[in-house]
Amino acid sequence: MIRIGIVGYGNLGRGVECAVHHSSDMELVGVFTRRDPQTVNTHTHVKVYNMDELLGMQDQIDVLVLCGGSANDLPKQTVELAEYFNVVDSFDTHAKIPEHFSNVNQSSEKGKHVSIISVGWDPGLFSLNRLYAQAVLPHGEDYTFWGKGVSQGHSDAIRRIEGVKDARQYTIPVEASLESVRNGENPTLTTRQKHTRECFVVAEDGADLKAIEEAIVTMPNYFADYDTTVHFISEEELMRDHKGIPHGGVVLRSGTTGFDYENKHVIEYKLTLDSNPEFTSSVLVAYARAAYRMANLNQYGCKTVFDIPPAYLHVESGEELRKKLL
Amino acid sequence: MIRIGIVGYGNLGRGVECAVHHSSDMELVGVFTRRDPQTVNTHTHVKVYNMDELLGMQDQIDVLVLCGGSANDLPKQTVELAEYFNVVDSFDTHAKIPEHFSNVNQSSEKGKHVSIISVGWDPGLFSLNRLYAQAVLPHGEDYTFWGKGVSQGHSDAIRRIEGVKDARQYTIPVEASLESVRNGENPTLTTRQKHTRECFVVAEDGADLKAIEEAIVTMPNYFADYDTTVHFISEEELMRDHKGIPHGGVVLRSGTTGFDYENKHVIEYKLTLDSNPEFTSSVLVAYARAAYRMANLNQYGCKTVFDIPPAYLHVESGEELRKKLL
Repeated sequence: MIRIGIVGYGNLGRGVECAVHHSSDMELVGVFTRRDPQTVNTHTHVKVYNMDELLGMQDQIDVLVLCGGSANDLPKQTVELAEYFNVVDSFDTHAKIPEHFSNVNQSSEKGKHVSIISVGWDPGLFSLNRLYAQAVLPHGEDYTFWGKGVSQGHSDAIRRIEGVKDARQYTIPVEASLESVRNGENPTLTTRQKHTRECFVVAEDGADLKAIEEAIVTMPNYFADYDTTVHFISEEELMRDHKGIPHGGVVLRSGTTGFDYENKHVIEYKLTLDSNPEFTSSVLVAYARAAYRMANLNQYGCKTVFDIPPAYLHVESGEELRKKLL
Repeated sequence: MIRIGIVGYGNLGRGVECAVHHSSDMELVGVFTRRDPQTVNTHTHVKVYNMDELLGMQDQIDVLVLCGGSANDLPKQTVELAEYFNVVDSFDTHAKIPEHFSNVNQSSEKGKHVSIISVGWDPGLFSLNRLYAQAVLPHGEDYTFWGKGVSQGHSDAIRRIEGVKDARQYTIPVEASLESVRNGENPTLTTRQKHTRECFVVAEDGADLKAIEEAIVTMPNYFADYDTTVHFISEEELMRDHKGIPHGGVVLRSGTTGFDYENKHVIEYKLTLDSNPEFTSSVLVAYARAAYRMANLNQYGCKTVFDIPPAYLHVESGEELRKKLL
């Protein structure tokens, strides 16, 4: 059994708890938190420890899954823990991945451990599909569409507007653009042509709805470059119709082969997810299995999804995989 | 530059020639054939050798791409050549892969070379997607649909019927079944519910069309279990409208997460290909790059797509890939 520890117990940590619970080759050692452990109730009643106890438990844990945020937690936490444990994180600030990789790699090599960073679906499974598709069709164009799904960052931005009590924002791909890419037309798409944004807003009593709508649709970076629709709804409606955290998206590569590039090919990878955090957690747990196996093979250092042989992710042996899945 | 040799010069061999021609890090050493080399004209005018000359050229070739057929060529050829060269093949008889793997592995280990077998899109990219999706969603169902595309085997079966001059058979997924899977309904599908078959037949002058149609739609294994449509067309129409070799298909996994399996997720991978052999060749060439890199790392023996770290397929460095694609 692969012994897993979870650091951080939000949506992602709970998702990892669930995925480990359903994995035949894993067991959960504990959840580690900076909060008072007494105040944290785990779904499976697995023990909750204070972070201070973690370093003393090195011989009880095979892989730590780090479930903190990319903005404030992981840049420090992954680097610190990678020296003492095999770790997997979901660091998703794309622009800072090279720096994070370099820092984590130093720690992992120093402590002779395996770390796998930026695991999830984007970065993660979407990145893998961009790589495979480019490798196979070097002559072509890449496209990534996100949604339909809830963007936490955009929902938060709306909540900060005066007079807004709560809000939920959906990112939605523009279907006509998606179809054009699928047809191999290789369109050049502006931000506005790729996604629309739909907002469900609960306003405070007596708030100026016109002013809220104006503040949303003109907000720079978040909404100004998009066609944005704003719906005012009641708190009850928000709770009833918008409490899920669905997401997903599509990665496409449209390329050509032939001496005169005369044959078109389209590779499409699409995710439709009821729960963004639970799916991300499931990817993290598969890569925790890979981290364990690579550590057993002394393949130390920092890795990304690009470096992991696919077979390491699956519970079955190479022989079984060749027989059943190849 | 990675020095590539091609064994066999049919549709697949020509596709490899083209893909190597378009690869910035590869050069083609030669095409090797059992035919009289004088009778083979390559598109890039690369030299054609008789197979007898191959063993003497070990120090001039980094990777051999084997472009023979799975029924008669590869079971013997890959095994023989894997002892003397790094090789990549597209062996696609799914049921015999374990046996082929074992035989090729013995040769590769004996000669300290790398072999990668069963490369293409199914087996190949489709297999990879089955593996990744199962690893991430262990609780779920797999579906593979093929087409719309030309099935060479079914076209040949029609050509063997008395009175048939030429024929082209298309395998087509049943759209309603595909939609049901995409909607997460996890249907149980019969052979008939998954694919239909459409046949375009050129009959000999005076042939009994009714008898030909009857022979097709009742043919065991090939057509009897499917809804099959037969169109009789002229030779000109066949040449004009059906000379391409398109193919493709969809791999789906529909699975659930959550303590009560309450959240549904669908992973879909779809290929739409103008030229089945050219796309397959492009996959072979990407894996030839991986074979070269693994040989340089002394990672000898037989591999499949399941064993290859994705980064080995792409011409760019790990650092560039992390920056641009992760």
